[in-house]
Amino acid sequence: MSAAPTAAGHAPHAPGGRPLDAMFRPASIAVVGASAHAGKAGHAMLQALRHFPGTLHPVNPRGGEVLGRPALTSLRESGGVDLAVLVVPPDAVPGALEEAADVGVRAAVVCAGGFAESGPDGARLQERVVRVAQDAGIRLLGPNTSGFMNPVDRTTANFMPAVADLAPGSVGVVAQSGGVNLALAFLLARAGVGLRLGVGLGNAVDVDFPELLDHLAQDDATTAVGLHVEGVADGPALVAALRRATALKPVVAFKVGRSDVSEFARSHTGALTGSYAVTRAALQQAGAVVVDSLEEMVAALVALRAVRLPAAADVGVGLLTGQAGPGLVVTDALGARGLALPALTDATQRRLTELLPPLTFQRNPVDTGRPSATFGDVLGAVVADPGIDVVGVYALDEPGVLDPVAALGPAAGRVLLASGGPPDALAAHRDALAAIGVPMLAGPGELASALAAVVADARGRSVQDAPPAAPRRALGRTLDEHESKTLLASVGVRTPARRVAADRAQAHAALADLTRGGGRVVVKVLDAEVLHKSDVGGVHVGVGDATALERALGTIDAIPAGSGDVTPRRYLLEEQAAPGTELIVGAVRDPAFGPVVLLGLGGVAADLGREPVLRLAPLSVARAQEMVEALPPAVLAGFRGAPAVDVAALADLLRTVGDLVCDHGDLTELDLNPVRITAEGPLVLDAVVVAAPPRGAP
Amino acid sequence: MSAAPTAAGHAPHAPGGRPLDAMFRPASIAVVGASAHAGKAGHAMLQALRHFPGTLHPVNPRGGEVLGRPALTSLRESGGVDLAVLVVPPDAVPGALEEAADVGVRAAVVCAGGFAESGPDGARLQERVVRVAQDAGIRLLGPNTSGFMNPVDRTTANFMPAVADLAPGSVGVVAQSGGVNLALAFLLARAGVGLRLGVGLGNAVDVDFPELLDHLAQDDATTAVGLHVEGVADGPALVAALRRATALKPVVAFKVGRSDVSEFARSHTGALTGSYAVTRAALQQAGAVVVDSLEEMVAALVALRAVRLPAAADVGVGLLTGQAGPGLVVTDALGARGLALPALTDATQRRLTELLPPLTFQRNPVDTGRPSATFGDVLGAVVADPGIDVVGVYALDEPGVLDPVAALGPAAGRVLLASGGPPDALAAHRDALAAIGVPMLAGPGELASALAAVVADARGRSVQDAPPAAPRRALGRTLDEHESKTLLASVGVRTPARRVAADRAQAHAALADLTRGGGRVVVKVLDAEVLHKSDVGGVHVGVGDATALERALGTIDAIPAGSGDVTPRRYLLEEQAAPGTELIVGAVRDPAFGPVVLLGLGGVAADLGREPVLRLAPLSVARAQEMVEALPPAVLAGFRGAPAVDVAALADLLRTVGDLVCDHGDLTELDLNPVRITAEGPLVLDAVVVAAPPRGAP
Repeated sequence: MSAAPTAAGHAPHAPGGRPLDAMFRPASIAVVGASAHAGKAGHAMLQALRHFPGTLHPVNPRGGEVLGRPALTSLRESGGVDLAVLVVPPDAVPGALEEAADVGVRAAVVCAGGFAESGPDGARLQERVVRVAQDAGIRLLGPNTSGFMNPVDRTTANFMPAVADLAPGSVGVVAQSGGVNLALAFLLARAGVGLRLGVGLGNAVDVDFPELLDHLAQDDATTAVGLHVEGVADGPALVAALRRATALKPVVAFKVGRSDVSEFARSHTGALTGSYAVTRAALQQAGAVVVDSLEEMVAALVALRAVRLPAAADVGVGLLTGQAGPGLVVTDALGARGLALPALTDATQRRLTELLPPLTFQRNPVDTGRPSATFGDVLGAVVADPGIDVVGVYALDEPGVLDPVAALGPAAGRVLLASGGPPDALAAHRDALAAIGVPMLAGPGELASALAAVVADARGRSVQDAPPAAPRRALGRTLDEHESKTLLASVGVRTPARRVAADRAQAHAALADLTRGGGRVVVKVLDAEVLHKSDVGGVHVGVGDATALERALGTIDAIPAGSGDVTPRRYLLEEQAAPGTELIVGAVRDPAFGPVVLLGLGGVAADLGREPVLRLAPLSVARAQEMVEALPPAVLAGFRGAPAVDVAALADLLRTVGDLVCDHGDLTELDLNPVRITAEGPLVLDAVVVAAPPRGAP
Repeated sequence: MSAAPTAAGHAPHAPGGRPLDAMFRPASIAVVGASAHAGKAGHAMLQALRHFPGTLHPVNPRGGEVLGRPALTSLRESGGVDLAVLVVPPDAVPGALEEAADVGVRAAVVCAGGFAESGPDGARLQERVVRVAQDAGIRLLGPNTSGFMNPVDRTTANFMPAVADLAPGSVGVVAQSGGVNLALAFLLARAGVGLRLGVGLGNAVDVDFPELLDHLAQDDATTAVGLHVEGVADGPALVAALRRATALKPVVAFKVGRSDVSEFARSHTGALTGSYAVTRAALQQAGAVVVDSLEEMVAALVALRAVRLPAAADVGVGLLTGQAGPGLVVTDALGARGLALPALTDATQRRLTELLPPLTFQRNPVDTGRPSATFGDVLGAVVADPGIDVVGVYALDEPGVLDPVAALGPAAGRVLLASGGPPDALAAHRDALAAIGVPMLAGPGELASALAAVVADARGRSVQDAPPAAPRRALGRTLDEHESKTLLASVGVRTPARRVAADRAQAHAALADLTRGGGRVVVKVLDAEVLHKSDVGGVHVGVGDATALERALGTIDAIPAGSGDVTPRRYLLEEQAAPGTELIVGAVRDPAFGPVVLLGLGGVAADLGREPVLRLAPLSVARAQEMVEALPPAVLAGFRGAPAVDVAALADLLRTVGDLVCDHGDLTELDLNPVRITAEGPLVLDAVVVAAPPRGAP
């Protein structure tokens, strides 16, 4: 490897630099498979690297010249480079890597597809590639990627030649797909945002999200990071890296998979898209701003690379508009995202009355009418309001009426602008504003998206999570309802008073016992193999006397036995609970992210597809309360005369459930359905605790 | 007025032209309040009109020169113009209009605010303005608007000077707000879309949505129209005009008011935002493509100005991608909008196998890998598939790899492109593609929005509405439950068998009568003044014997009497219905749009804020079925063992309800809550029919 800069202007990685510097800041590059034929990827790659200031070798077994540079006939001839970019067919990759290893290459980009994403043969080839690279200590990007772009160091190794002219900047992009990496780079360019580093992971056999997040988090020149996620191999590693990164700088994440795209996705990078809801929850919990589209990501990055507020659960947004109509559109879009504009203080409103003509709306939003010389003072008054943390401004671009740099500059760091005007004029102002730290968006909707992202970033850091916990015990087997409730009760969860009855006589004794103080009982079949008890006549409510009990027991006895089940029927009798709202509390062990707790509405609402709230376990007190507070206000308050939800008690239940799953390594699923909200707190009416079959079981 | 063109290149309105031609295609203009001071609106207006090819007079009482043109000291001096643009304070408007009337001015734009939107004084001033204009036959735009832009005829009368250089095009914009008109014009410019006509309505005392829609619908140079709606004064007129317009060309509509912005909105143009849900339903029903943001409107207009499919309920979308990652993002975004990509036929797939390298995904989406020479043929094969109506293409902009004009041209009219690449290169391709009728979007999300708009436009025209109906009778007064159900039964709606009882003896007789064949009854208080019967103990289900009846009647008798009500308690006894899903069917008379029918879920789902489906009445069979089919699939199929919904029978009920409201001029509200879905069809368990108080009533 050559450690010295080989051309003026090139900043090589320092000796002892970070592990990925050889990849992203190499002093020398060889493009293996460089081609003299325009249109070929091996030609485009060399074009893309045309501004690279270090040593650049085309490598082609036929020699000759590529784009004016003499081609080496083999990598060996180079005498060693920092980075080898392999633009060769998949079968040729292992050989090329072996050659690279021989000459001490430190990093390689593998562009070819046809590996694990294509089937078993490709998977075997991929394994060989990984082995060769690991043995040689070569860091690998890909395979199945278009490459990366580091415009700051003019190192743009991607088979799209136009990347050579991408503007340098401070935004990092880590995309699972090489194509999305490019799409984002150009969408950012359109928004006037330069790139610090853009990486397409492809099959990600070596360089992956966590390491790149750390790399960008530690890079002083990076001010914000965008993530494009299809599927996640190692959830906890991603979450941990994201937590480290978001503590230092904003991360905006987009997860593919709102709808079912798994078949196409698998053929793409071989990644399973996993649970959309769990992945989103994990990204959010780790502090990322989760967006619904790449366009929204761009708006968020435009804002967050310049404006980051301190962590806060409540963020006050001010809005200042030169035109009421667009201001109304922004207000409406913020409202639809749940962001209300707080009223300004009386002092602020008095100051605005001095500054503004009458008839304008001066609460929040503040409508200035056509901007005048006082616009900067008006903005200053709104920014100074103690309830306001960040201000969005919408104003037409009117030269001679408003100088945006002069008017907005003093509020830099707490103000965002969207402006209507001719594209060229806007671009000039945008760049001038960017230089002083004021982000400029293109329209009312983008301004709302950007403000929402700034708020989400501040909120995302306001709740601390509990540290991850390792399992300390095992269930051994799936529990029946009584065992499940006994386990729950042992950790302080409220369950109804109950008796197990092994025969009818015991059932009658239990009835007498449980109804001693009045009230009725619920009679259920007690059998872990009967999954939908209600549907098969296994649950009987309102049983108050021996006749009703006999009827219930008869129905239960008629339920067909589970597969291979020869044990006699057992019954569970429970005190019947007072009516109230029914919720579902559950937990699963997600294959990618591990223990997840969920809270949803029970009954009809669950059937109608209202999504439960999910969070990774273990839950901190604040995180559990956040889950509870996400319930509809009508449910929290207790609608139709039902008792209100005791937030602290329900949050406690969620934490306990999360701890149970974390604690028991073989607990795969826990369903408390329903949990009834009573005046005394949440009461678990049904419980299922499922264990993974022991190893070696069928 | 001068009828002849006064400068080369100006196309004046033909004699006998359309009513708004004097406004939007004047041969001569006077700017009253023109100012020599840069920054003043009266200066900016003249700057904006600098390319106007006709006669242009600045008018200023102090005379002098404005932007190189000699100012007239009064409008009178002009000897008459087609259009007077008034950039004077509100108090000066009536006088200026009177002067305009004296010299035969035919149209005026009133920019000033301070009219009805500002309070009672302004409202009186506005009335005066309207009277003067009407008496003189002057057509009026505004007041409280920034003006309009007609770049095709270089008539850009707006106080934003940059509008003079807006590119001419074929898109019409009608915005309630002058500021939004400008915002849209510049967002369209950014997307490379020129403007046919952009109008900000302001307070819309004369020129309003319906007439402008007709104007643009009849204008051959207009290919698509964007509407920005805050509030609607005359719903039926808007709906009728929209129906006429959408029969001829696509209309994309954005309604403000998802969240509560009414206070700010009222201060803006004085318009009440009205019901967001009703307005959206009305716009959709009239054939408009309703979008959620101005940015989405721009994407929709980019697409629809070039691609309009025939009316169809089912539209097949194909997707062709050069990069799988962005293709996945588009697929996912379409899926989230409920648009699945249909499988291609076997014949198409065979053809694709010939054309494409192996390992690419060839179903739908079709992933080509890096575009090659066959890209055009691949697109041709997908477009030719009998299940495909429109195709979205995502590909990087790679000069030398793909010539978009050559590859996409043959599919023009049925294909949309989104492309990643340097902004300048994209803009060049975008313009070349626009010339051949292929819309180009900026990113994956915009492509999905644009495809969804093309589908929504085709679908929106696939359902015909019933013609509007005028009321023929009146209720006279609000009906009690029995009267309501009797009215419903008289038009064929199923209600439970019931008896009215005026005293306890009659109640016992009714019980005996209704339970003769077994079963139980529901006992209710019968009193139109008791509104929430269940909450006050006015509904008793499962009553099967005299004891239970006595208990029920006792509770009912304990309900406090309504205000001034001295009539003795009456009871309603009904056969108790079999269990089943509960729905809410209702109707209201919307202040702006008239009769509206709604269908929603009953019980808990309604409390949790799941929005009902709304449609304007009267309902056609197809429209009513569309409402029913919008219910969640689980409800339609009958979840948890409940009977399935009989679509035709429920649609019939909706139509009947709509007809009742249309028919009775004083019927303001009709609530059937719940309607139970039984195996024999929908059964109305409770009914309230409310009449407006007669005129003169307190």
